[in-house]
Amino acid sequence: MLELSDPVLDGVFRALANPSRRAMLARLTAGSASLSDLAAPLDMTLSAVEQHFKVLERCDLVRSDKVGRVRTCRLQADTVRETENWLGVLRADWERHLDRLGDFLDQTADTAEEENR
Amino acid sequence: MLELSDPVLDGVFRALANPSRRAMLARLTAGSASLSDLAAPLDMTLSAVEQHFKVLERCDLVRSDKVGRVRTCRLQADTVRETENWLGVLRADWERHLDRLGDFLDQTADTAEEENR
Repeated sequence: MLELSDPVLDGVFRALANPSRRAMLARLTAGSASLSDLAAPLDMTLSAVEQHFKVLERCDLVRSDKVGRVRTCRLQADTVRETENWLGVLRADWERHLDRLGDFLDQTADTAEEENR
Repeated sequence: MLELSDPVLDGVFRALANPSRRAMLARLTAGSASLSDLAAPLDMTLSAVEQHFKVLERCDLVRSDKVGRVRTCRLQADTVRETENWLGVLRADWERHLDRLGDFLDQTADTAEEENR
């Protein structure tokens, strides 16, 4: 059964709707990184990167620890997996519908064939 | 390799960030439906449902045909699958990183053991 009104999903999908935030997540698949590491390939200020990071952090797509002056950021793979699963259930529900439709059409064809014999 | 700056993904994730739009997609996994069918379980006007539907249609999560006065809406499963795949690649990249990290730690432990012999 699909959970539809989960506000966590609202936040996750909204966070994913930005290419810079997706680039930050992709960078974090290669391992933990500082905010400066995340900013390096992006054409934006460190402060803008920090704002994007906060959006990702609020919906638990990433987490971070601050040691001294350096914040180390890491991917929260569980949230990625749960979001992927949500889409997987949607797709599986659709495929089940197609299977049932196929069965129904096969049965209808069989019945028509028997009636025509 | 992850496609990061695809504007289609921006639209798809933005469309998914709304619980009513997710409910409409979930309803469409049970088969094609009219806009009135989609509106029935939602506490909103038909016009609001139509606006949400247009957001889903713009990013190709749904398609529709109008015959006479009735618009028949259906899920565009390919777009769901592509979005699921995007998250799957992100997760797989992360899992490969964990595997490499595991191998590295095993090797380091072996080397330390040999040196201590």
